[in-house]
Amino acid sequence: MRLDVTERGVFPIAPTPFHPDGGIDLDSIDRLTDFYGQVGATGLTVLGVMGEAPKLDHAEALDVAKRFIARAGRLPVIVGVSAPGFAAMGSLARSAMDAGAAGVMIAPPNTLRTDDQIAAYYRQASEAIGADVPFVIQDYPLNFTVVMTPAVIRRIVSENPACVMLKHEDWPGLEKISALRGFEADGSMRPIAILCGNGGLFLDFECERGADGAMTGYAFPDMLVDVVRLSTSGERDAAHDLFDAHLPLLRYEQQPGIGLAVRKYVMARRGLIASDAQRKPAGAMGGKAIAEVEYLLARLARHDPRAAVPAL
Amino acid sequence: MRLDVTERGVFPIAPTPFHPDGGIDLDSIDRLTDFYGQVGATGLTVLGVMGEAPKLDHAEALDVAKRFIARAGRLPVIVGVSAPGFAAMGSLARSAMDAGAAGVMIAPPNTLRTDDQIAAYYRQASEAIGADVPFVIQDYPLNFTVVMTPAVIRRIVSENPACVMLKHEDWPGLEKISALRGFEADGSMRPIAILCGNGGLFLDFECERGADGAMTGYAFPDMLVDVVRLSTSGERDAAHDLFDAHLPLLRYEQQPGIGLAVRKYVMARRGLIASDAQRKPAGAMGGKAIAEVEYLLARLARHDPRAAVPAL
Amino acid sequence: MRLDVTERGVFPIAPTPFHPDGGIDLDSIDRLTDFYGQVGATGLTVLGVMGEAPKLDHAEALDVAKRFIARAGRLPVIVGVSAPGFAAMGSLARSAMDAGAAGVMIAPPNTLRTDDQIAAYYRQASEAIGADVPFVIQDYPLNFTVVMTPAVIRRIVSENPACVMLKHEDWPGLEKISALRGFEADGSMRPIAILCGNGGLFLDFECERGADGAMTGYAFPDMLVDVVRLSTSGERDAAHDLFDAHLPLLRYEQQPGIGLAVRKYVMARRGLIASDAQRKPAGAMGGKAIAEVEYLLARLARHDPRAAVPAL
Amino acid sequence: MRLDVTERGVFPIAPTPFHPDGGIDLDSIDRLTDFYGQVGATGLTVLGVMGEAPKLDHAEALDVAKRFIARAGRLPVIVGVSAPGFAAMGSLARSAMDAGAAGVMIAPPNTLRTDDQIAAYYRQASEAIGADVPFVIQDYPLNFTVVMTPAVIRRIVSENPACVMLKHEDWPGLEKISALRGFEADGSMRPIAILCGNGGLFLDFECERGADGAMTGYAFPDMLVDVVRLSTSGERDAAHDLFDAHLPLLRYEQQPGIGLAVRKYVMARRGLIASDAQRKPAGAMGGKAIAEVEYLLARLARHDPRAAVPAL
Repeated sequence: MRLDVTERGVFPIAPTPFHPDGGIDLDSIDRLTDFYGQVGATGLTVLGVMGEAPKLDHAEALDVAKRFIARAGRLPVIVGVSAPGFAAMGSLARSAMDAGAAGVMIAPPNTLRTDDQIAAYYRQASEAIGADVPFVIQDYPLNFTVVMTPAVIRRIVSENPACVMLKHEDWPGLEKISALRGFEADGSMRPIAILCGNGGLFLDFECERGADGAMTGYAFPDMLVDVVRLSTSGERDAAHDLFDAHLPLLRYEQQPGIGLAVRKYVMARRGLIASDAQRKPAGAMGGKAIAEVEYLLARLARHDPRAAVPAL
Repeated sequence: MRLDVTERGVFPIAPTPFHPDGGIDLDSIDRLTDFYGQVGATGLTVLGVMGEAPKLDHAEALDVAKRFIARAGRLPVIVGVSAPGFAAMGSLARSAMDAGAAGVMIAPPNTLRTDDQIAAYYRQASEAIGADVPFVIQDYPLNFTVVMTPAVIRRIVSENPACVMLKHEDWPGLEKISALRGFEADGSMRPIAILCGNGGLFLDFECERGADGAMTGYAFPDMLVDVVRLSTSGERDAAHDLFDAHLPLLRYEQQPGIGLAVRKYVMARRGLIASDAQRKPAGAMGGKAIAEVEYLLARLARHDPRAAVPAL
Repeated sequence: MRLDVTERGVFPIAPTPFHPDGGIDLDSIDRLTDFYGQVGATGLTVLGVMGEAPKLDHAEALDVAKRFIARAGRLPVIVGVSAPGFAAMGSLARSAMDAGAAGVMIAPPNTLRTDDQIAAYYRQASEAIGADVPFVIQDYPLNFTVVMTPAVIRRIVSENPACVMLKHEDWPGLEKISALRGFEADGSMRPIAILCGNGGLFLDFECERGADGAMTGYAFPDMLVDVVRLSTSGERDAAHDLFDAHLPLLRYEQQPGIGLAVRKYVMARRGLIASDAQRKPAGAMGGKAIAEVEYLLARLARHDPRAAVPAL
Repeated sequence: MRLDVTERGVFPIAPTPFHPDGGIDLDSIDRLTDFYGQVGATGLTVLGVMGEAPKLDHAEALDVAKRFIARAGRLPVIVGVSAPGFAAMGSLARSAMDAGAAGVMIAPPNTLRTDDQIAAYYRQASEAIGADVPFVIQDYPLNFTVVMTPAVIRRIVSENPACVMLKHEDWPGLEKISALRGFEADGSMRPIAILCGNGGLFLDFECERGADGAMTGYAFPDMLVDVVRLSTSGERDAAHDLFDAHLPLLRYEQQPGIGLAVRKYVMARRGLIASDAQRKPAGAMGGKAIAEVEYLLARLARHDPRAAVPAL
């Protein structure tokens, strides 16, 4: 099973579940993976930044990826392989593909500036991981400070047959989706899959602009699946109604620094993982933040019963 | 009238209205200023980044500030004086104060890194503008890449008697508000006013954390005023209900690059300014973006009649 | 007298001389300008970063520029007009040209990332200053974090007839000079003047690569003139011998933070300006640094009698 | 053998020698290590940025480190363990120490801004590698964009008993050395070893300011050893004479991007390594750059016979 340009729907960014003592919680990996499948995810992505990949050593990272892959069954799994050098990237990519990954995701190092540097980087990366390994471009300038114009993305797509997907999280990014779909329409770029990140903050309109779905880690991936489905099937108002009900919490979760703490807290409250433990270094929620999230969940539950968690 | 630490409520960040030919629209300045007063703003801020200050030459900038100040009457006006050097900053600050400004706002240059550098900068800035000129710290790391810990803010407050207010737009920032209010509670920092920016994206909780209000430019400053009032008076659910209704549009307006275009578009649609024209360089809304904003306005109008604008 | 693509030789970056009390030292402006002419400079550049331009208010900046221009006589004067916005840039450029400047220099703001953004910026800048005003691109990525490939520079040159010169201070930059001269040779770019900055640290080889000279502020502009002359006339070893003798001091002067303090100290020791005073904020030389510079001057004086300054 | 605060002299930053086909050249590792010992190096550092560490996978990196360590005999070897996460850092540090390393070197990630963030990072890093593993702070703001004041370095030293050395490559940095030695003199910081980097560009004065030596990779480590020895023994003029003779080449080698290509080229010309091959991505020397380096070597050979390499 290899990732290709026809992927659609929602690939949740999976967190790595830990026990409170820092050990990897394999049972929660299984439970979470099952949940993703049950709610209609069409794939998943592991070992991203929000998967705490840098806090895992090489052997652990592989173990985590393998466990997700084994449990995911028919669902394609994308493995993040961004690394400070091509040797580590190539090594991790080969191991991941050997373990059954469907493809890999590559973010640009924050030293890249010019269009030529960005294009050269992806050529060399594709060579390093193997020209037959499908890869996803992660376009996230807010985090990586690397700005890719639509024309540079087109160039990467043109120069690398193995490039099959864009994880779109430019900000603002709606016009970029329209521009890329325009390139496809005018024949200047072959079609690729576009899944959107940025915590889902603009998912309502991203689908309408032509995105194929979402790749992000919001604690309600089931909502993401529903919004993509409603939007794709033309139920615009219903898509926005559901999205808007979640927006206050989604926005809260998207805060840098403590976003992952919020996400894991809510996932644990929902019973999707056993503990919200993170490895160090970790942003922590204080008592006020916990109370705020509980308040947001209670408000959300009035519109979406999936947010009705048991009392603390 | 001098700005002091007792300021409360909402100081809208005023856009600079232009005619389509690029000229300054003085009538719209008057209309907008009147509107701010009518809806309960307690002050206003002009010549900020979102006021297109860098697109005005020195004489124009002063003219704009003077017009706002003259019309604002009893409302205190804060003038942004951030500049690449202390000479221009001091010159603009003196002119603004002479024209009747209540105080000035100073952002840190993006070259500052260490705690010592930040503290030294504000000491030198206060000396440059005059030790008696009340000033506001603008703490906006997402834009300026300068990160101020609560302890550094305390140090600036301690070292500069003229520092009376924090424009808080760190992200995430809720814990920072709590930390600063904690410093006041334990006696290690004298009280200052804290007004929140960041487009208002977290205003609902910022008030609950102890902020005194908002200083931001969302196209519905009347909503900001209502949320601050409701929150302050203990009507928590009502505050969140109103805020949540606006959140989809507010989030849309907060996009970097085209945020100001959206803001001016909505303000023009509301009749607060005559034209949404910006001077160059300007992010522009395409047809799809306009349709999206119209859709958001229509949805909002179901909850808040102030969003019911005439058909296009 | 307008700057054009035939400029050659050395345009010193002139410091702005101050009295110890912070006032502008007009007599030293005259003396310094005379010196530049006497030693063979072919022009000069004022109000650059090293001219402490941000520490001058608008009126002072114009006064300084006018004084230099008036005294320079037949020597063309370039005025730095980099500014946070096009309004201030345009205003300063018009004033400078009215006062007799030969052209202006424009650095890119550090927010630019993509090739398209850089090209767009220079198009808008040229429009803002007037399409007939000759301008110099300042390409200094170490300071501005904006990286321009040779192809982007070619694009700026192609799109802006008024672009006549490159102030080259990329690092490393020798290959860039060769690439640009290659563009001229293959007909893909019209010829422009290339003067090199970076404190002169690579001037010996820059001339050999095809640069037309130097635009930098080293305290011995007479050495820069000699090296460019010797190199141009084919006296390679002599050019390197002189350059190498100065390199220990030149390197010392090029340190960020205190470089200008060293430069002004040496210029004052040489009698070119009356005082080494800087306006705040200023890096200062401690006693050890002064002793180090004196030692370097003494060593240099064994090779170049111009470094033999009177005892302290 | 554990690194401690009494280290002195020169620890060359060793390049990783490759065969032209990209394989690791173990024989050249041995030859190079022998050379370091013969010319008086007091230790060496491997797997730094200039050792192309990111281009080695985990197993290769360990192999390289082990080969250097085995050959180095009595010379202490420092292993670079900077990594995007503490898991990989801890894993590499344990492996290196097990293989006989004397200590490790840790650079700060470029996301750190505030004093508190920097101090917290080193506390967590020391915990990750083991509180008993001696470590070196790499203070290189030009490359990492992290600015550490002398007070922050003092704080790291105070909070981490295992911190034994500073690799000093701030720029400018002479005053920082004086400040740190001042802290030791006034009793506010325990003594640490300070070895200087930055390509050796200021080594002449760094020794005079109190540095204990150099840790850098200039292609003539024998010159570095001589300069440190001459400077330490009070032969100031002789130290500067030798240093100045090398400065034109040293400066040329210090260029970002192609510096390592120049270094390996000269080392291969001297016979210290068999090939100047780098793994991709690599800056390459064109024909003009090669001719320039040959010219610099020929000029240097007039003063230092060690630069007299066989004709090409």
